[in-house]
Parts: sequence; structure tokens; C-alpha cells
Amino acid sequence: MNRRHELVRENTARSLVLPVAPARGRLRPLGLDEVTITGGFWARRRRINATATLDHCRDWMERVGWIGNFRAAVEGRIHRDRRGREFADSDVYKLLEAMAWAAAGQGPDTSLDAEIAALTEAIAPAQEPDGYLNTAFGRPGQQPRYSDLEWGHELYCYGHLIQAGVAQARARGEGELAKIARRAADHVCATFGRGGIERVCGHPEIEPALVELARLTGEQRYLDQAALFVDRRGHRTLADPEFGRAYYQDDLPVREATVFRGHAVRALYLASGAVDVAVETGDDALLAAVVRQWERTVARRTYLTGGMGSHHRDESFGDDFVLPPDRAYSETCAGVASVMLSWRLLLATGEPRFADLAERTLFNVVAASPAEDGRAFFYANTLHRRDRGTVPPADAESPRAESSLRAPWFAVSCCPTNVARTLAQLPAYLATADDHGVQLHQYADAEMATSLAGGHGVALRIRTDYPSGGAVTVRIDRSPDHPWTLSLRVPGWTEGAAAWLVEPDGTRRSVPPGTATVNRLFRPGDEIRLELPMAPRWIGADPRVDAVRGTVAVQRGPLVYCAESVDLPDGHEADAVRVDPSVEPKDGPGADDTVVVAGELAGHAGQGDTSWPYGPLDRPATEPAAERAEIVLVPYRSWANRGPATMRVWLPTAGPDTTAPS
Amino acid sequence: MNRRHELVRENTARSLVLPVAPARGRLRPLGLDEVTITGGFWARRRRINATATLDHCRDWMERVGWIGNFRAAVEGRIHRDRRGREFADSDVYKLLEAMAWAAAGQGPDTSLDAEIAALTEAIAPAQEPDGYLNTAFGRPGQQPRYSDLEWGHELYCYGHLIQAGVAQARARGEGELAKIARRAADHVCATFGRGGIERVCGHPEIEPALVELARLTGEQRYLDQAALFVDRRGHRTLADPEFGRAYYQDDLPVREATVFRGHAVRALYLASGAVDVAVETGDDALLAAVVRQWERTVARRTYLTGGMGSHHRDESFGDDFVLPPDRAYSETCAGVASVMLSWRLLLATGEPRFADLAERTLFNVVAASPAEDGRAFFYANTLHRRDRGTVPPADAESPRAESSLRAPWFAVSCCPTNVARTLAQLPAYLATADDHGVQLHQYADAEMATSLAGGHGVALRIRTDYPSGGAVTVRIDRSPDHPWTLSLRVPGWTEGAAAWLVEPDGTRRSVPPGTATVNRLFRPGDEIRLELPMAPRWIGADPRVDAVRGTVAVQRGPLVYCAESVDLPDGHEADAVRVDPSVEPKDGPGADDTVVVAGELAGHAGQGDTSWPYGPLDRPATEPAAERAEIVLVPYRSWANRGPATMRVWLPTAGPDTTAPS
Repeated sequence: MNRRHELVRENTARSLVLPVAPARGRLRPLGLDEVTITGGFWARRRRINATATLDHCRDWMERVGWIGNFRAAVEGRIHRDRRGREFADSDVYKLLEAMAWAAAGQGPDTSLDAEIAALTEAIAPAQEPDGYLNTAFGRPGQQPRYSDLEWGHELYCYGHLIQAGVAQARARGEGELAKIARRAADHVCATFGRGGIERVCGHPEIEPALVELARLTGEQRYLDQAALFVDRRGHRTLADPEFGRAYYQDDLPVREATVFRGHAVRALYLASGAVDVAVETGDDALLAAVVRQWERTVARRTYLTGGMGSHHRDESFGDDFVLPPDRAYSETCAGVASVMLSWRLLLATGEPRFADLAERTLFNVVAASPAEDGRAFFYANTLHRRDRGTVPPADAESPRAESSLRAPWFAVSCCPTNVARTLAQLPAYLATADDHGVQLHQYADAEMATSLAGGHGVALRIRTDYPSGGAVTVRIDRSPDHPWTLSLRVPGWTEGAAAWLVEPDGTRRSVPPGTATVNRLFRPGDEIRLELPMAPRWIGADPRVDAVRGTVAVQRGPLVYCAESVDLPDGHEADAVRVDPSVEPKDGPGADDTVVVAGELAGHAGQGDTSWPYGPLDRPATEPAAERAEIVLVPYRSWANRGPATMRVWLPTAGPDTTAPS
Repeated sequence: MNRRHELVRENTARSLVLPVAPARGRLRPLGLDEVTITGGFWARRRRINATATLDHCRDWMERVGWIGNFRAAVEGRIHRDRRGREFADSDVYKLLEAMAWAAAGQGPDTSLDAEIAALTEAIAPAQEPDGYLNTAFGRPGQQPRYSDLEWGHELYCYGHLIQAGVAQARARGEGELAKIARRAADHVCATFGRGGIERVCGHPEIEPALVELARLTGEQRYLDQAALFVDRRGHRTLADPEFGRAYYQDDLPVREATVFRGHAVRALYLASGAVDVAVETGDDALLAAVVRQWERTVARRTYLTGGMGSHHRDESFGDDFVLPPDRAYSETCAGVASVMLSWRLLLATGEPRFADLAERTLFNVVAASPAEDGRAFFYANTLHRRDRGTVPPADAESPRAESSLRAPWFAVSCCPTNVARTLAQLPAYLATADDHGVQLHQYADAEMATSLAGGHGVALRIRTDYPSGGAVTVRIDRSPDHPWTLSLRVPGWTEGAAAWLVEPDGTRRSVPPGTATVNRLFRPGDEIRLELPMAPRWIGADPRVDAVRGTVAVQRGPLVYCAESVDLPDGHEADAVRVDPSVEPKDGPGADDTVVVAGELAGHAGQGDTSWPYGPLDRPATEPAAERAEIVLVPYRSWANRGPATMRVWLPTAGPDTTAPS
């Protein structure tokens, strides 16, 4: 028995009902059978996800024929009947993964289990005897298998199939979907191993999937194959595309890169796979390389929302400090991928900065994408919308970044199912354990129970309406009869404002950003209280980010705010807003988490406005005087739920323009 | 004889050696046989164009096979041997047009005439008996003719063929190239007329070409067909592409649009054709619609350089006020197309604002594209370059917007030949005549001779080193013996600074922006002197353009300036520049048109710099203090001629950031 098997065996004492189950690393994740979100924002979102979004995605994929593709393949008519883009299979797999994690939080034999079985039944006969499974290639009248690794997405599709298979196995024990995934993975190893096709897929994704399958099965070959793919990337085995090889990270080996670049989702999936490989193989240099890339990317290529990717043309990262709010692509899937990566880095290192970014991204990107009814989505999450756009069609696929309103489905519809699987997995991202105790990373009304070292049971009850309120109460419901450590993340956003921790004995102490710990002998009924400072506050612009010079933003807790035209008087558009950062923002009067700031509404700044005369290009008109106003801001994630609107996160400051030439 | 013929006959008294010869309109253009540029900036650029660029383009098109495509078509092997994109034929035609206009400025039987004959000989046998001519479609093994109007560019290619044919005929009298063009035009009329294929081309260009052919030949049917194409556009005869129908202006009829939108070159070629149709048919409503679109586009969608198009993704205009300097696409061809349009609007209306924009665009876009040796080009003309990029390959085609350096050739290489034909036509854009006299629109060291009403000869000698200097002296070498009016454009950029006009008798008067006129009885030897204020000056940013908030720019005369890293001390990048707009900019010490401004160099603002600590996203680092410095700026059009460099036009202001929250 090799070391890999030992590690897996060691793992069997832990929950494995979770998306990422590393054999090593600083922290041990808690599973969906150990953590339950019981109330608050995420509980509402998860309920909508389970009751509306999953059905919505299945119905659309039936309607647009992506599920039918598997039937067409079996019936020998796929060459003429295939629907959707080359990667359409992957969305069926992502939906299956979302269903499996959603079912994991429920009892056995749910309607989701029946859905999974039915979809699996549609897929299974399309798998060929050697394990190959893809509806876009390889059959008579189609392009040959692996004839277009740059754009064909075959390995990308396997990656999602395997993640779905792992989810199915972990939620319910290995069933047919997991077996299909295993056969596909075996086929990948046989085809792309040493001496086989020594290239990579244009879209990374197979890498983290194979590592997770290795973790599930204990099969070293899946890990080896993932490591091969990670090591091969950057050695120019793919053709040079219009966007350059950085587009699919084939420009530089992962170990040599200094920053994430190219297509954001590709870059972040690859980095997630590289962390997985690094953790499983003990490759600290590879882990350090990804951390270094993450650091520079977060400091220089990430929006205030946590969004990543500033170019529409190739859905890519821009250069350092290229973060235009109006052209923010900030693809929902890049947000999902960033959370995937942050979570892996948190487990590997235990450092709270990774949970900080995950929180920011979950609240301001992942939560921003779905409409309140869970049946429409943002593909791109811009930080500035100048026009209201057109209402997306209710019954047709939309382009990716068209309107100010969310669209029900897209021609490329990766985002809805990615949001669905992330919400289904979410309880697994709240807390971890280690030999010393339990760590809370994300705050939600929740219950959790796990075993500490030695099998000692611990159960916690978390009560909070975070992020509306800043109080988080942790009640100990069960505890070993020896001291252990409860760790609570004190978010980075509390910097400069006091956060407080109240121990069971009433001791109250200020806690700086980072990790606050309470080490003691806990007794059932003990309560620990974290009080986070929730006053809204101005956020200054980094002077190196050209696109936000002369503006400020507002944040309250982890929530980024925006001005939305529906809240402005007299039909003003969001571009009319000028704010006065010398007056502190304050909470709005209602219970809906609004914020009010002082400022002006420039009557003549809207897009449609023609009251400013057209001046010569080199002599722009002076901004007309405007009246003071109190301006209501709403959480960014909730915008565009009240009809077409204009919106902006970064708000120009009012008053004389001190940069204008004298 | 219909009215059309009368108008053409009336025109025969005028020079027709020019690219745009309207039968009506406020001003009559002077031809290449009437105007000669004798010295200064444009003479140098035209010399390089004639002696280097034309050869360069021909050599590259031989090398990459675009000329060979015609031979391959004749030899029946085009289906397997064709090279280049679907519109590659058009660049051969644009080169031919450039050669014809260049030859027009020279005596007969030049080497250019031999080149034109040789290329024409290569093309001629590829034309099919019915006039069809395109190497990408219609032959065995190729897609059928007109099977892809959205992307096939067949009519676009005819447009350039026809413009080349018109140039050939006007420069030398109708020869073989003009006959090929006529046969193609006849084929177009037969195929796309009423009852034929009632659709349009994905890329406008046939429209102005057909009108010019009508002007050349007096054939009404070419004008009718052009009018049909203009009227058909916007009625959704093309499929809805990924970028939306606005991409090829098929979203709205020309008459109903309020602004230019979609792909910038497409929009501007279409607008040029619409003006041509409007002028020839007396359709004032159509003309007014284009003027209205031009006004809003210039005020809200045009860069300080005159550049148009702010999106890389689809080479398109952004929304109003979306003008990011760093992502400025500002395609060279859009600059060329804007000059085409401005010229047509100037001829139609006589309003100097159109010449203002043409001047700005010629000096800051068209002149910025070619390298000093005329053998490398910018495809996109960004206003801000953060990294130096890689050196473009000398022997391979480059992507469109890759490096800070100009590239010798592109996979899509529309720009080099477009610059070449514009420089070859340039003398025709300097001056016009009408019943009252002569109008000077652009200033260059030049000679011109034409006939005023009644056949009275007038000859002028213009002496200037503009735009290095601001003095323009017009000497009358020949004049009718009755009073007439000499009009001189006083550029819009003189607003706020006095321009002076000195009459032959020494009378000196201040002249406001617009048109200055001198009406008198001129005698040979009389001199009129225009003195334009050439002090460099700060340009404020329009408060509605988010991307340049908090910055200023510098202009001197019509020239826009930039900071280029090669002029900065201690290896600073352009992003380190902070300027102090309270100190007026001043001329640099040398004779090379540099400007010096006061400011600072922020030591820690460059892209590669890591000395600022990585902070949390919502708490950016404060800019470190910087030392005062005098910063040398260079004309934007001359940047990147001294090796890879970073550059910026809009310069952040120094000093305390008054927009930062307290």
C-alpha cells in the first residue's frame, strides 16, 4: 500500500461529503453532512437555488437541446442534430454536480436523486466502449476526437463530468454517474499519459477534477495525470491563437508565472488544479508559485467586488491596474473559480486572507449573478452601467453581456450551472477543523457538528443576520471535556474600525483583522460573540487604477454598494451622481441594507442628455452646478432587480474639479 | 440627357484628378493636378509613402500570397492555395488606388504606372465573364458566391476595386483597371438591384465607391445602386451576429440613427457613402441625419486625437463618453474613414468644423500609424500603453494590437494600404474653390493653381512650417483682375488664444475660430499672413468621460502630446508621471517640437514595481511622495519610434488627492 492509500485511509475518518477533500494541508474542511445553513441570506439563496434554479437549468437545457445531444448521439443523428456550442455537454454535467450537492443536504431518495438518475440514463449510452464521451466529436460526420484541443473542450467536459461523478459518489455512494466519470478518467489517462497525446486542453478544468477523483478513489494514476497536465501547460503544445497563448495559459509554465493572465476562468481553474496537485504531492514550490500569482492578481487585477477579468474581447485579465468599471467583464464563472481557488489556498495555508477574498467574491459576484427568483443571471458583472439596455428575451438565449437586466439563458451558458453548484456546495465553505479545534471562515446562521482529534465530538450553533448585522453568536452545544480552540476570522475589511470578541465569561476584547481565537474548556451553552463594525464607509481609489481616479466607493461590511437609477429622483441616471466624501455615509432608514450618502445630482450628465452643448474635443464643457442631495445606495449584488437601470459602484466626487487646468 | 449627365458635364470644367468629385455641394475640391505639397511634414511623409510604403505593401502582399491568390484563381488551384483572410483582395485594390494617386502627382509613364499595369494584369484574368471577381468565393471547392454576405466581404472588395479603378481613370484616363472595376460594378447592379439579392454587405464600402463611379462615368445606375444599399441598411437583411446588428449598422436605417455605432470603420464608410448619395440626389434630410450623427459622435465618442472606436472586442464605438485611453482601439482605418467623412461633409456644407476634425485626425491618427521609415504601422492607436510589449516580428504577420512598437504587416492588414492611399490623396484635401474664391482648409507648404468662376486663373504659394510654427504666408502668384475672396480656416483649437490675420496692406486683425476671409483685388506678389497661437496648453478632461477623470493632456496647435518612457529619467515608466497644471507648459529647448511640463515622477507607480505593499482591495496604499521634475512630452504621432516604450496622453495631476475620503 503506497502513501497515497494511507492518506486516503486516514481521510476516511473525516467527512467526505464535500467538493474538496485534500489529504494534506493546514485545515480539514467540514462536509455537507457536518454543516447546515439554517437561516439568513445564504439560506434564502440556497432555497431558491434548490427550488427554482436547478429546474430552470434543466428545462432550458432540454429546450435548447443540450440534453438531447446525448440522445442524438446514441441514435446516430448527432452529426446533423447537435445543438449548442462545443462545450454544451459540460453544462449538463455541472447541473448534475449541483443536483448531487443539493441532494447531499437532504434525506435519501429525493426527487433530485430521480433527476440525477434520469439524466445519467440519458448520458450513459453515449459513452463509447473505451470511455470516450463527447457529443461534439468523433462520430461519423463529426470532427475526429482530439483534433482541436485548442477549442474543442473535450478534456474540459470530462473535468465537469468527473466533478459531477465525484459529487454523486460523495453524496450517495458510487452510482452510475461516478462509474461513467471513472471510465472517462481512465480513458483520459490512457490517451494523454506519457507516450500518448502529450498536450493539454485549451480550457483547464480536467486538472482539479482528476485530483478530486484520486482523492475519492485513492487511485494514484489520476493524480499523476493531473500533475502531468499542470506541468505540460506553458510549454506551447497548443497553437498560438488570435489572443496569444496566454489566453489558455500556455505561454509560461505554471511554476514560472508571476500573475494570473489570459482568460480568467481558464487561469483560475488551472490554478485550482495546480494547488490540488501541489497539496497532494507535497510540492511546496508549486503551491508558493500559485500563492505569489494570487497575491499580485488580487492587488492589481481584481475589482473591489472580487470580480476578475477586465477584457470583453477574450474574457481575460487586463494588465496590472487595468480595472475599468464600465468594461468590467468580471464573469460570474471567474467569481466561482476564484472562490474555488481561495478555498483551496485557505485549506492549504490556513491564512484568513483567502477567506477574505472568498467572502468578498461570494457576496459581490456569485450572489450578484442570479436574479431574486433564481431564473435569470448575469454572465458579466459590470461595475458601471451607462445605459439601461434592452430587456433580454424570456424565451431565447442571450449574448453574454448585453443588458442591464439578467437573462434567463445564454448561448454560452456556463454561469447559471456554475452558480447552482456553488450555492449547493456552500455549507462546505463555512468552517474547518484541525487538531486544535474549529475555525469559522464565513458567517451565516448555521449549525455544525464534527469530531476533533481523538474523535471528540463538537457541535456549534451560529446565530447571526450577517451581513445585515455584524453580531455573530456561537453557542457551544457539545464539546470535549478538555480545552480546544475556536478560531473566528476577523475580516480584513474591519481594518481601521474596532471588531470585538466577547468570551463566555463576558470578557470583551478588541480583535484586529486576521484570526481571533478562544482557547478554553468549553461547556455546552457557552456563547462566544463576535461584533463586527458595520458602519458604511468610503473606499478610496488606488491611485494606480486609472479608470477610477477621482471617484470613491462605499462598502458596508463585505458588501460593495452602488447607485442605481431607480433610486434617484427626477429620472436621473446613475452617471448624474456626485458624492461628498467629507460626509460619512450612513445606514438607510429601512431594513433593506441601503446606505445614504451626501452628494449632488448633476442634471446634465446622463447619457441621453443633450443639454450640454457639443464643444470642440479639446475644450470640454464645464459641469453645470448641481443641487445637493441625499443619495440612496443599494448593495451591488441586488441591483437590476427592479427593471432596467443604470448603475455605478465608483462615484465621482462633487465640488470644484481641482485637476482642471487653471 | 438626364440631370445627372448635365451635372457631370458641368463638372468637366473642373479638375477630376481627386478622390471625391461631387456634382453639387457648397465647395468644389481642388485636384491633385491643382495642388502640390512642396515641403514640410506632409511632404516628408508623402515622400516616404511613395518611396518606401508602396513597395513595402506590394512586397508583403506578394510574400503572404494575397497577390498570388489571383494567379491561383486563374490556374484553378485557389480552393487549396488561397492565402489570407476573406477580404485579402481588397488590400491589393487599396494598394492599386494608392499607386494611382501617387502617380497622379508625377509625370506620365512612371515606374508606378508599370506596377499598376503588372498588378492589373494579375487581376484581370481572375474576373469571370459576368463581372464577378473575388478569390475567396464561387469557384469549385469554395463557398458559393454571396453565400455569406455577413462576413464574406465580396461587396466590400468591389468597393475598393472600384475606388482603385476610379483613381486609375482619373489619374491617367480610363485603362484596364477602370474597365475591370466597371464590369464589377455592372455585375453588382445586375445582381443586387431591385428584384435581385435585396440585401447589403456586412462591411459597407461599396456605397461611396459606386457613387464615385457614377461621378466618373455619368452612369445613373451606379448612383441608384448606391442609394439602394444605403436605404436597405438597417432593415435587418443580415443575420444577427454575436456583436449585435449594430456591428454592421444593420440595426437602424441610416436616416433614423442618432449616432455612429458598431464597428467604427464600417460606420464611417457607410456614413461617407450616405453623404455621397445625399449630395448627388439632393437628399438634404439624409445629409442632415449624418451631420447629426457626426455631431454626437465627435462630442461623445471621439478621442482627443480624433481617434474613433473604443472597444477591442468588435472594433466598435463604445457608448457615449466611453473613451478609455488604455483600451482605445482608434483603428488607423477608422481615422482614414473619419477623414473621408469629414472631407465629404466639408464639401457639402462648407463648415470649418469638419476640417478641424480632419486636421486633428490626420496629425494624430493617420500620421501616428506609420513608422518614420514607412515600413511599419500601428493598427490600433492607443492613448495609453502600460507595458512595452514585445518587439513585433520583422518577417511575420502580427496581431492587430500587440506591442508598443509598430508592426510591418498584420494578418488583417487593412491599415497600411489605407494610410498609403490617404497620403497619396492628401494634396486634394488642402483647399477648395467656389464662385467667390479659394478656401484653405489644411496648412502645408504648397502651391496651388485653379480657375475661379468665368475661367479666371488664380495661383497661390503657401509658405509655412506648420504645425511646428504657426505662421502661414499665402502669396498670390496669379489673380483675376477683379476682387475675390481668400478664406482661411482658423482652427477651432485657437479658441481662447488670439489668432491674427495680416492683409497685404499690413492691416492686422484678430480672427476668431472659424473662417477668416480676405475679399479684395489681389495683385501678384500680395501676401496674406495667418498667425496661429502655438503655445502649448493644458487640455482639461470632460467630466463625463470617466476614464480620464483627474487627468489633463497637452496640445500644441493641432498636435496632441504624450509622455513616453524613453524621455523619462531613471528608467521611469510613463505611469510614474504626475503633472502640475497650475504651471503652463512650455516649448522644449530643441527644434523637435517637444514640450516641457512641471510635475513629479512617482517612483512607485510603474507596472513592474512591487515596492508598494499589497493591501486589501478596499484599502489601497497611499501614493508615496515624489520629487518635482520637468517632464518632456513629445507629439503623440511620433511616439514609439525609439524602441519599445510605455506612453500616456492623459496625465494624472500631482498633489494631494482631494477625492480621497477624509
